[in-house]
Amino acid sequence: MDRSALLSTNTAHSLYETVKDLPIVDYHNHLSLADLRANTRFTDLYELWIKPDPYKHRAMRMCGVEEERITGSASDFEKFEAWCGVYPRLIGSPLYIWTQMELQSVLGITELPCKENAKAIYDAANLYLREHTLTPERIFEQFKVEFACPCVSAADELSVFQTTSHVAPSLRGDDVALPSLDGIKKLETLTHPIASLDDYKDALSVRLDALQKVGCKFSDHALDNGFVYLADDGKNDARFAAVRRGEKLSDADARALCSYLLTFLCGEYAKRNMTVQLHIGAQRFTSTRLRTLAGAAGGFAAIGNSVCIASLTQMLDTLEKAAYGLPRMILFTLNPADNAMLSVLSGSFTKDGVAGLITQGPAWWWCDHQSGMNEMLENAATFGLLTNFVGMTTDSRSFLSFVRHDYFRRALCDWIGKKYEQNALCCPMADLEALLQRMCYQNAKDIISEGV
Amino acid sequence: MDRSALLSTNTAHSLYETVKDLPIVDYHNHLSLADLRANTRFTDLYELWIKPDPYKHRAMRMCGVEEERITGSASDFEKFEAWCGVYPRLIGSPLYIWTQMELQSVLGITELPCKENAKAIYDAANLYLREHTLTPERIFEQFKVEFACPCVSAADELSVFQTTSHVAPSLRGDDVALPSLDGIKKLETLTHPIASLDDYKDALSVRLDALQKVGCKFSDHALDNGFVYLADDGKNDARFAAVRRGEKLSDADARALCSYLLTFLCGEYAKRNMTVQLHIGAQRFTSTRLRTLAGAAGGFAAIGNSVCIASLTQMLDTLEKAAYGLPRMILFTLNPADNAMLSVLSGSFTKDGVAGLITQGPAWWWCDHQSGMNEMLENAATFGLLTNFVGMTTDSRSFLSFVRHDYFRRALCDWIGKKYEQNALCCPMADLEALLQRMCYQNAKDIISEGV
Amino acid sequence: MDRSALLSTNTAHSLYETVKDLPIVDYHNHLSLADLRANTRFTDLYELWIKPDPYKHRAMRMCGVEEERITGSASDFEKFEAWCGVYPRLIGSPLYIWTQMELQSVLGITELPCKENAKAIYDAANLYLREHTLTPERIFEQFKVEFACPCVSAADELSVFQTTSHVAPSLRGDDVALPSLDGIKKLETLTHPIASLDDYKDALSVRLDALQKVGCKFSDHALDNGFVYLADDGKNDARFAAVRRGEKLSDADARALCSYLLTFLCGEYAKRNMTVQLHIGAQRFTSTRLRTLAGAAGGFAAIGNSVCIASLTQMLDTLEKAAYGLPRMILFTLNPADNAMLSVLSGSFTKDGVAGLITQGPAWWWCDHQSGMNEMLENAATFGLLTNFVGMTTDSRSFLSFVRHDYFRRALCDWIGKKYEQNALCCPMADLEALLQRMCYQNAKDIISEGV
Repeated sequence: MDRSALLSTNTAHSLYETVKDLPIVDYHNHLSLADLRANTRFTDLYELWIKPDPYKHRAMRMCGVEEERITGSASDFEKFEAWCGVYPRLIGSPLYIWTQMELQSVLGITELPCKENAKAIYDAANLYLREHTLTPERIFEQFKVEFACPCVSAADELSVFQTTSHVAPSLRGDDVALPSLDGIKKLETLTHPIASLDDYKDALSVRLDALQKVGCKFSDHALDNGFVYLADDGKNDARFAAVRRGEKLSDADARALCSYLLTFLCGEYAKRNMTVQLHIGAQRFTSTRLRTLAGAAGGFAAIGNSVCIASLTQMLDTLEKAAYGLPRMILFTLNPADNAMLSVLSGSFTKDGVAGLITQGPAWWWCDHQSGMNEMLENAATFGLLTNFVGMTTDSRSFLSFVRHDYFRRALCDWIGKKYEQNALCCPMADLEALLQRMCYQNAKDIISEGV
Repeated sequence: MDRSALLSTNTAHSLYETVKDLPIVDYHNHLSLADLRANTRFTDLYELWIKPDPYKHRAMRMCGVEEERITGSASDFEKFEAWCGVYPRLIGSPLYIWTQMELQSVLGITELPCKENAKAIYDAANLYLREHTLTPERIFEQFKVEFACPCVSAADELSVFQTTSHVAPSLRGDDVALPSLDGIKKLETLTHPIASLDDYKDALSVRLDALQKVGCKFSDHALDNGFVYLADDGKNDARFAAVRRGEKLSDADARALCSYLLTFLCGEYAKRNMTVQLHIGAQRFTSTRLRTLAGAAGGFAAIGNSVCIASLTQMLDTLEKAAYGLPRMILFTLNPADNAMLSVLSGSFTKDGVAGLITQGPAWWWCDHQSGMNEMLENAATFGLLTNFVGMTTDSRSFLSFVRHDYFRRALCDWIGKKYEQNALCCPMADLEALLQRMCYQNAKDIISEGV
Repeated sequence: MDRSALLSTNTAHSLYETVKDLPIVDYHNHLSLADLRANTRFTDLYELWIKPDPYKHRAMRMCGVEEERITGSASDFEKFEAWCGVYPRLIGSPLYIWTQMELQSVLGITELPCKENAKAIYDAANLYLREHTLTPERIFEQFKVEFACPCVSAADELSVFQTTSHVAPSLRGDDVALPSLDGIKKLETLTHPIASLDDYKDALSVRLDALQKVGCKFSDHALDNGFVYLADDGKNDARFAAVRRGEKLSDADARALCSYLLTFLCGEYAKRNMTVQLHIGAQRFTSTRLRTLAGAAGGFAAIGNSVCIASLTQMLDTLEKAAYGLPRMILFTLNPADNAMLSVLSGSFTKDGVAGLITQGPAWWWCDHQSGMNEMLENAATFGLLTNFVGMTTDSRSFLSFVRHDYFRRALCDWIGKKYEQNALCCPMADLEALLQRMCYQNAKDIISEGV
């Protein structure tokens, strides 16, 4: 890949030199716990690179590739070839540059894939993988990943986190915030009999303690399209009891119980000095066909309408008034039209002695590309404060996605380098460099280093 | 007009050279069928240029020109002069550059209009029109219009399309998706007695067959501000019967029947391999005064709130599950805040073997200008795929609006030329040129050339 | 501050030379009537600069400064020092450049504040304030403020406006559009007994006459997040009677009465040729904690969801049909996602003989920074018309905020200078200069000079 990728000014180049070699803190991702535990050796480019990446599957579908050659029964190489055949049509998509970064960073391949060279690339890569030992640990080393936080459920086995010092869990809280009977039973086996909502809350506390013991500093919750926060109406014991009996809640009851438990959980997070990530605005239900074919996370989610800000502020206000107050929160939006609305909340909820209690997170999911980052940064700068930005995280299932930290650092340096050269910042260069270091590394590092 | 208009980099200039002379496929416009049929000779600049253009009327109103001199009883020249008087105040509006393009391309006039030179321009232009034969055919030739699709209603006379090979209808489907008694009766005269919803659906199929016979490849439907999709509740036979009896439906019933018929029609389009254009988000009811004065399409429509994406995805999912599946769809949004939400649907609904089943259309109506195009392109690139972009279309009533294809090509080359020079694309120049050719011409050409 | 601040092209620099010395018309602000009346001499930098500025308080909170040192019982210097300590962390925020402008323009201080130099700056500034007489009048002179319109309530004492020729009130209409019993009683003391809605309307007319007598040309109303316009249902006499009896209206009744009175007031404004500012989209209720600590205007408001455009257009249509028609209106949006929706209304409601009946106002409140201005200008240019832009206004409580006119002029020149150099305007330079003069000064001047 071009050394100048995404960098368009002298200032951008020179700023990039000051951040490019900083370690990586990737505080939220979906890396395979099994692969981390086993430190799996990767031996096949398709398995490593195409199979676990729904972004690539999505692009292939948009180009009309038959599902057979995406997630179907075609051979690994046929699928790999289908991806390579699609690649030249991706100009302008973030996948176009990510692909170059992924191939070059780990495997040293600099050719641009196409149908014609698919076989050559596949063979070269697999030869490399036979001759070199590529594992999660090796990848962490190469990308200078100082700390990574793969998602776990509250009921997940946590032993992997006891043996490695640079990995801690990020709690995926959605299934406990809206419990199912199965989930409750699973939690019982790990804690104690759960007959009531209070038992359930106790069980969650027990699991949070266990998570904390293995270094868990982050949790996340999805506030999907249509999110409404409902104040406690005193009926949540009854709603929980219904779930416990195996009944299905109405939508309204589910929302109420979920609001209640989210409130409870955020209090627990605050007590433990954990940071909550709110992933706001996905429209996860689109094509029933693709959901059946590719699973719930199969790369076909859409962007939801703007979040109801009165509801969100009501939730934050309720949390602020509660016993443990507001935990630190990172707000992610899938709908870029909400950037300003979310960034400005940085000034609406604050806490004595805490810088950046509420901040906007990096451009998320389908927004994770240069123009999405530019928009996010522009809003964070003007409605919030850049200095409080918590840093990039990949949110990815693929071990090769750590290249996106480099992508982010380039985009950030380019965005701010232009501003500097256009006299829009009016600040000393040394202060600017210190700011970028905070944004690329130090702020996230500070959070994981904080005591309770 | 400046040869460099909208082009700001060397790369933009050089890319523009590769697309500027490509033929035009204008797959959706409102050109006069009467003028096309008669191949009318234009002899007056006011009639040709000002009278049919609501954008110009709107600009005049914003400048305080009295309605008398816009659509009122003032003389043609007084109206022309009023327009020229307003022109110097339009800096920054797309009309400012369109005007230069329109005057220069066909009439060779390079002066910028103002009150003072109105008479001179009017006389020079009308002299030109006396000395040269300017007709729709001549204009098509000059602009290299290879194919154009003016709107028709399902009940329109189609003979004009039998005699010309480079014009085919684009079906305006709104009046049949929400039928009136008059509309039903009109359809009866062209098909068969319509006593029931089934008869009506049959009649629509008959008309679609007739449209297909004269080359119709496109239809369009408006999903106005407030659009909601309602699943079939089994009561649409009764609703249709009420319309058939001349009763007025409640808003809720009208929506339900319209959802039902839209679903039916999209199935018919899919069966016939027709492409559906959804024009989303207009707020057509604003000033009662202007609606009375200037008619429903008089240039006073506003931009509606964001479309309900849960409703839109429900509709697309319903269509995908139906017998004929999803037709190819082009989504237009009047509200630029919805660009990302609509672009990302490209990856939510796909079809084996079809590239670009769902794509975002070009910047529409009030968004049809350089910054609207930049936004649309940015979103299409990052949330969808540029390679699937179907191409520019004017959606205009004016024969001179074909200049907007040149405007689009310039804006596109400038947008992507900047990215190229700023190291944001990282692609071979030859691939970039091929991409632009697809976007400016080939993709639309492929659609009109496709068999059923 | 750098002379080139915000200016990045030769064209921008040269355009800036043509507007930088124009007088200022600041048609809407919150300057202290008491300070204006007394022509208070400012003797302390904290009192002048930090205490009245909620933007600075907000930034300090976001950096974790304890409330004690923001609005609490710490000493003035401790608070000043806390602000200086935060300053270096504000790179990218508009406050970073405003601060430089504020310190340099009036006090000649060019150092960038930090914890270390806080004492030196404080001492130097206070020495300057002892040795020079700094008053509102002196500040007006220095900034060439030709006309300023501080907000008043309908019941405010107006004598200050009788003695100064360059200050007139801007009516803050919210408390009269939704009356309280206290407000009614206050109005009674200034007018006549108010027993009925008709009496109340008469009283408002009386006060409007009084305001008009002291030169009032502007009013403003907030349409907060959740705004809905309700047509007159004939029950507003009863609703008013309830308020008169001291009863609390339901939300729905309050909305209905407020819609009714807004309609009445807009008619009165139209009759008097007053211009109405609609401030749209604030979410004022966020943190109860901060509301208690810092008051309703304490700098913690958030950005609301998109305004309901059907409701807004219904209101405008109702006004247009009413006896006095639509007054001139300036629409401000706090949610930048609404820029296009509001700009385009310029073409939806117009009046014979009036240029710019409805226009979008300058980037408001949290949007008041270079990127907010760029967005607003881009939308005003393409959906409305730049030539009708009414001009910058500070909307500020601080006498030093007049620097923001310079900030605006720089941002405007930079925005349009880039366009000019990138061949996106295609207009004569002289016309461009004339346009900028209108936008920076002449349009606002024309409004305040207009007769009734």
